[in-house]
Amino acid sequence: MIYLDNSATTKPYKEVIDTYMKVSEMYFGNPSSLHTLGKEAEVLLDQARDQIAKLLKVSKKEIVFTSGGTEGNNLAIKGTALEHQGRGKHLITTNVEHASNYEAFGQLEKLGFEVTYLNVNESGEVNIEELKKSLKDDTILVSMIHVNNELGSIQPIKEVGELLKRYPKIYFHVDHVQGMTKVPISFKDCHIDLCTISGHKFHGPKGTGVLYVREGVRLFSLFTGGVQEYNLRAGTENIPGYVSLAKALRLSMERYVANKNHLFQLREQLLNDLVKIEAVILNSPKNGAPHIVNFSLPGIKPEVVIQALSKKEIYVSTKSACSSKLAEPSRILMVSGLGEERAKSAIRVSFTFDNTIEEINEFVRTLVSIVSQLKEVMR
Amino acid sequence: MIYLDNSATTKPYKEVIDTYMKVSEMYFGNPSSLHTLGKEAEVLLDQARDQIAKLLKVSKKEIVFTSGGTEGNNLAIKGTALEHQGRGKHLITTNVEHASNYEAFGQLEKLGFEVTYLNVNESGEVNIEELKKSLKDDTILVSMIHVNNELGSIQPIKEVGELLKRYPKIYFHVDHVQGMTKVPISFKDCHIDLCTISGHKFHGPKGTGVLYVREGVRLFSLFTGGVQEYNLRAGTENIPGYVSLAKALRLSMERYVANKNHLFQLREQLLNDLVKIEAVILNSPKNGAPHIVNFSLPGIKPEVVIQALSKKEIYVSTKSACSSKLAEPSRILMVSGLGEERAKSAIRVSFTFDNTIEEINEFVRTLVSIVSQLKEVMR
Ligand SMILES: Cc1ncc(COP(=O)(O)O)c(C=O)c1O
Ligand SMILES: Cc1ncc(COP(=O)(O)O)c(C=O)c1O
Repeated sequence: MIYLDNSATTKPYKEVIDTYMKVSEMYFGNPSSLHTLGKEAEVLLDQARDQIAKLLKVSKKEIVFTSGGTEGNNLAIKGTALEHQGRGKHLITTNVEHASNYEAFGQLEKLGFEVTYLNVNESGEVNIEELKKSLKDDTILVSMIHVNNELGSIQPIKEVGELLKRYPKIYFHVDHVQGMTKVPISFKDCHIDLCTISGHKFHGPKGTGVLYVREGVRLFSLFTGGVQEYNLRAGTENIPGYVSLAKALRLSMERYVANKNHLFQLREQLLNDLVKIEAVILNSPKNGAPHIVNFSLPGIKPEVVIQALSKKEIYVSTKSACSSKLAEPSRILMVSGLGEERAKSAIRVSFTFDNTIEEINEFVRTLVSIVSQLKEVMR
Repeated sequence: MIYLDNSATTKPYKEVIDTYMKVSEMYFGNPSSLHTLGKEAEVLLDQARDQIAKLLKVSKKEIVFTSGGTEGNNLAIKGTALEHQGRGKHLITTNVEHASNYEAFGQLEKLGFEVTYLNVNESGEVNIEELKKSLKDDTILVSMIHVNNELGSIQPIKEVGELLKRYPKIYFHVDHVQGMTKVPISFKDCHIDLCTISGHKFHGPKGTGVLYVREGVRLFSLFTGGVQEYNLRAGTENIPGYVSLAKALRLSMERYVANKNHLFQLREQLLNDLVKIEAVILNSPKNGAPHIVNFSLPGIKPEVVIQALSKKEIYVSTKSACSSKLAEPSRILMVSGLGEERAKSAIRVSFTFDNTIEEINEFVRTLVSIVSQLKEVMR
């Protein structure tokens, strides 16, 4: 099996599953319970929170556990909008966001909020001057994706943070789901107020995530109830999930550091091979993330290519997983100005640390043969 | 170890953990992905949904997976209120709800909704006539707990459903988190529109739950994004969690059916023993749920008793786990008219299928000895 769909989801590390198992069996208590089993669970939860905080170089009080990236984005965006609407109802985002961000803004528009959607250039980046011009007296939130999940384009988070630092009343939210453990940023240096990460994108368990909430930031909580997660996210904690998330984060960050160039090498190899294929047009920007390569095969249905690859146990995707069953061309590629033909024939290859040059070669060889067969049939 | 805190959380079944492990390893694909790994995951998810639907005797389309009971309650309540506020802003609940229900209503009050909190009688039940009188032209939701998590009192869900059947524009939500697998109800016969259940209360994994959403009911979704869960709850699905939730539900329902009287026998034994202890006042109603027994030890700090029991590896709780660290007397016992003394000295014992008469006896013996020691010290 050659799994090259790591932006859709990753395989959990063996250590992560083992941890999940052990914690489920040995520390099943409710951390809110007063007895020993509760206390033990509470200690474990606290350790996981502390470990994640240290890895992210933030404070333990700033780590809010969630059920994943979609929850993180929704909590950050709706939580800010609903809590601070008294101060203003203008929100800014980009037009290349993941659906969980994009749709949240759509819902807020229906509730009477005004949303500015920033455009991106051919590299998929927003323009700082355009952002600056969009800021208004009643702007309360700027929210943007760090690494785009379809193209791998990278937003200038540092520059945006520097700009927004001068507007202390505007919250800055970053969707770091695709960047985490692959394109590092410093939450503090970038002056980020809210940052979303998701466990299953870096070999952690599905249904787990973290929303970084800078100390002092108040949110309208989507789940009220118990006093868990600093009153920002009620509900009995998924301790086995959170402890294994912490483990996955540590292991992935270690692997990134141990071999920083590996993902770049895979990408380099793939790009070199792809440009030699006549049918291929590259979509990912040159300065994009090292783990995402997007290209189009104009005139060819990507589903067919995916199925054919799948038969050979090679797994890649079309657009973002959660919209892959919708028939329309990719929204992201459309607004990036790549045109409908490319937007509806795109294929995404996404790596993780385990992938090898041999796998890339095998993928390219198989792709070439599939494409030539298809061209033959269509002639 | 004698674990009698099953209303706080339960130990996951071995089979549940095994299933979680197997699915995590072998079916890690994103069900939205178009390739084989995605399809396999999708099939598995569909089977889990189908299995749960059959167990609950509802349709597959009515099963919405969530991260737990708190999410289910919040989605049902806020989802209804925000979606249907155009039709009315009056909501009805009871004053003996779990915090995840109660606080959701508090938040909605701040957003301009009007909430009626129904009182309960000494058995902890609402009065159908009072409910009827509370219904108004702009009522859009009636929400109530089935089995109370502190006292075990049971609301007359069937009668409420019969009444509300005559008001098709009013949605009926039931918090069935404590009742599920222990005090069965038929969602269809009770004319329930929305029903919350939570995996970790019946030996399933933490961080999983189901919201039953009757076909045709529209909700304002708290998580927007991908088209998962019929557009009601976006986010990459926690497939290992949901598949193991289905397994836990099946096993627990089977165990309930196999020995329906067991929980009642445990309760009977415990009640018989407790009435013989002078220091004890029973709080749970006679006709309450079979798995929850609440009693007070006036003049004695329950935390001290819990710690002393905990040292002997016997685990019980004070009030609801998620408020157990708050110093106030139990809100539920207060509004049930039991008075402050009882409300601040309450202890909850909660069973599951595995508990034995021997465990109950051991618990009572230990309790008697602890109480007499404490009385000695305090004299
Ligand atoms: C950029 C981005 N944001 C958010 C999400 C949503 O995260 P999750 O799948 O954990 O809900 C994803 C992935 O699906 C993503 O790629
Ligand atoms: C009656 C009731 N409703 C809701 C909940 C919340 O469920 P969860 O712990 O899964 O968030 C609980 C338990 O905590 C409960 O006892």
